[in-house]
Amino acid sequence: MKRRDFLKGGSLATIGTLLLNPFGAKANTITEEFKGKKAKNIIFMVSDGMSSGTLNMADLYCKRKLGRHSHWLSLYEDSLVNRGLMDMASASSIVTDSAAASSSWGGGVRVNNGSLNVSPNGQENMPILQKFKKAGKKVGCVTTVPITHATPAGFSVFTKSRNSQEEIADIYAELGFDVMMGGGHKYFDAAQRKDKKDMYSVFRNKGYTVARNKSEMNAAPKGKPLLATFDEDGLPYTADHMSSNFMKNNIPTIAEMTAKAIDQMKNHSNGFVMQVEGGKVDWAAHANDIAGLLYDQLAFDDAVKVAVDFAKRDGNTLVVITTDHGNANPGLIYGKFVNENFDSLQKFKNTNEWILQGIKPTDSIAAVKERIEKANGSVKITDDQAKDILSYYQKAEKEDGVYNPKHLPFRTLAEIQKSYTSVGWISMDHSADYTELAMYGPGSQYMKPFMKNTDIHAFLLKAAQVENKF
Amino acid sequence: MKRRDFLKGGSLATIGTLLLNPFGAKANTITEEFKGKKAKNIIFMVSDGMSSGTLNMADLYCKRKLGRHSHWLSLYEDSLVNRGLMDMASASSIVTDSAAASSSWGGGVRVNNGSLNVSPNGQENMPILQKFKKAGKKVGCVTTVPITHATPAGFSVFTKSRNSQEEIADIYAELGFDVMMGGGHKYFDAAQRKDKKDMYSVFRNKGYTVARNKSEMNAAPKGKPLLATFDEDGLPYTADHMSSNFMKNNIPTIAEMTAKAIDQMKNHSNGFVMQVEGGKVDWAAHANDIAGLLYDQLAFDDAVKVAVDFAKRDGNTLVVITTDHGNANPGLIYGKFVNENFDSLQKFKNTNEWILQGIKPTDSIAAVKERIEKANGSVKITDDQAKDILSYYQKAEKEDGVYNPKHLPFRTLAEIQKSYTSVGWISMDHSADYTELAMYGPGSQYMKPFMKNTDIHAFLLKAAQVENKF
Repeated sequence: MKRRDFLKGGSLATIGTLLLNPFGAKANTITEEFKGKKAKNIIFMVSDGMSSGTLNMADLYCKRKLGRHSHWLSLYEDSLVNRGLMDMASASSIVTDSAAASSSWGGGVRVNNGSLNVSPNGQENMPILQKFKKAGKKVGCVTTVPITHATPAGFSVFTKSRNSQEEIADIYAELGFDVMMGGGHKYFDAAQRKDKKDMYSVFRNKGYTVARNKSEMNAAPKGKPLLATFDEDGLPYTADHMSSNFMKNNIPTIAEMTAKAIDQMKNHSNGFVMQVEGGKVDWAAHANDIAGLLYDQLAFDDAVKVAVDFAKRDGNTLVVITTDHGNANPGLIYGKFVNENFDSLQKFKNTNEWILQGIKPTDSIAAVKERIEKANGSVKITDDQAKDILSYYQKAEKEDGVYNPKHLPFRTLAEIQKSYTSVGWISMDHSADYTELAMYGPGSQYMKPFMKNTDIHAFLLKAAQVENKF
Repeated sequence: MKRRDFLKGGSLATIGTLLLNPFGAKANTITEEFKGKKAKNIIFMVSDGMSSGTLNMADLYCKRKLGRHSHWLSLYEDSLVNRGLMDMASASSIVTDSAAASSSWGGGVRVNNGSLNVSPNGQENMPILQKFKKAGKKVGCVTTVPITHATPAGFSVFTKSRNSQEEIADIYAELGFDVMMGGGHKYFDAAQRKDKKDMYSVFRNKGYTVARNKSEMNAAPKGKPLLATFDEDGLPYTADHMSSNFMKNNIPTIAEMTAKAIDQMKNHSNGFVMQVEGGKVDWAAHANDIAGLLYDQLAFDDAVKVAVDFAKRDGNTLVVITTDHGNANPGLIYGKFVNENFDSLQKFKNTNEWILQGIKPTDSIAAVKERIEKANGSVKITDDQAKDILSYYQKAEKEDGVYNPKHLPFRTLAEIQKSYTSVGWISMDHSADYTELAMYGPGSQYMKPFMKNTDIHAFLLKAAQVENKF
């Protein structure tokens, strides 16, 4: 058959249209929409330690349970964003930690793992929120882990060690940022700090509202800077949060924190810049804790919606959505029952952390099985599997009297769960995978499909038309 | 500091430029470049079973060894392509197999895993290469696995079972496609086929040139269709290929096959459509065989360069670069020695398949260690690890006289290698991860950042302005 034969007639409207645009749709128009506009506001969103499988599972969950895309992927479906891959290597390794990752964006320079904006040669790199603050913008951070943790700190401070969280709380008090919200009470609390300093008093004396629960957060007035810590260390996992009325009443979700932070800063004439971190996605991946991972990714996704909805209304807000590195590369594995196994996660009520922290060396095998059944929606493990888990507690207690909550048998439990969740993990640590990067709003049209982490620093300043000279 | 203060002077050229375009670069111009053009030719490239970690490791390898990006990622670096994620689910599962995956593109309909373009209700879906052939184009397939395997077959035929490869060879003879190149001699060879039919005679009688090695391929004249099978089943892994002069002299690389296929069809006035599959990337992932995976991905990458270089010269060629599903989600794991461990892969000389197929039950522990040392560049495994590997052969022989080459101790070896390669795997099977999709050339401007596998079918026809009516 010759070409002219099937160009005659047929189902397509006209040959003219066919030749000009056979797709009947416009090509990507992001370039046009934000032409000549600057990013008055920037919301930089990080799902910490999100491998591509994590993004995939959250979207599959939404599609299969709710009949819609995740908010993140609906931005792709609707062609509202530019997408790229980002190379997150640090100065010391092809696999970054969160401190070096956030520093690469925050300070624009690759530093060694463990360092916050201090280069291998000792050079201190000015973090981007300090630059934006000096340029007259309001700035802030929101996270589900301690507000003094690596990812918010990489946008805010420089210090050789990411672990000096009490010291970071001191630095925060000097910075005068406008919103700092998350966990980490113990780094501000006089009773728990080494120097016994009451950091809340320090912040209050500088004019801050201090909130320790959801209602205090909601009541915080707009005219004053806000410090909020909702838990001792990280906030509870979303999966556990959903199952506890106490938590629901007292601890805001990441979406609620994001909405409040935007509300605190949105009327500022020079605009605002904030970082939002879903930090416990990373912690869950470290623990191979599928309920922790999936529901915290979904909670982060709700925060994405809050940010993008604001940006759509506002018209002058750049939203960057990304992750700092892969972690454990989880994925759903081929098999006859993979659909059913994946859907069974909808019935999971609690995390593996909840399961394992509630087991005692004196528990019976039946009690272990019952606890897992309660958390994992009637899943029945075998006696031998329960024995495997229990043996950790019995051995650990024998060895040193107490067991280390950081070393609970997360790996053993994840391996057992694999047969009924179809979820596998490569390790309990970060991976080198290039990371997902998406941008909505003014500046997004200049994003390249492949970006180096350190390029983000100048990119954000340029998008906001703030000179990089501090 | 107020905005007007730092807009005065400073390092950026002028305020005018600053406000109009602070990036000093054009926004993505793909939309403009191919406006109004149609894809006379299409080259559809599939790295089968490529998880995002595989793409990442191949690029890292190029950067660390060769000081350049992989060819695939250089297209991102240079902003030459549009990128998207693709949902590859099949009719029966959120995790597809290669037959259902290729059918989703080839027939435009989701079918059950294992099926080739036959829907669950029995409907037969016309494969896209048949449509393009009827529309007057030359068409063909190139692969490193049997040419009768799932991925080329999904673009070419419909049949309920992907495993009837002899039958698929029969169907190919009827189709009259212009280039079919890969492995799979045993499905064409009279001595090995159940029906003892000499398929090569059948093809020759239909006017085909039949090539069985590289020089015969190179000598094939342009005016005649070409069938080439270079090995019994799949072609050798690239890692083993590089180490063998016999293989290098007789078996072309995927880049060489791609160049030859383009050369056979490029002067056709109505254009051509071809699929190129790096099929052994998938086989290596199934075996958790890092040398197999990495070097076959790099070989695929060389084929990407061949295709894109042609498309750049030609100006009317759409190149689609993608994968059909993740597999084993490999990734480089955080750790003190991850850089050195990853770089050690540069010294790997042979695959795990080569290692394991060469071990005999009567081998000594020293012989096993020596074989691994030879293949993995002086890596020394322990006696206990060698014993673990050897025990498989001793046990297997005891059980049934011979061992099954499909069940060699690939998992055990990969687990041992993990400590000196830093590469982990979630399983030995496909994953549900959304897949990487990139397009260069006319039509690419209409690609959405998220696509459903079945949308590709109509997309390719529209890009070529061929009506979807067959």
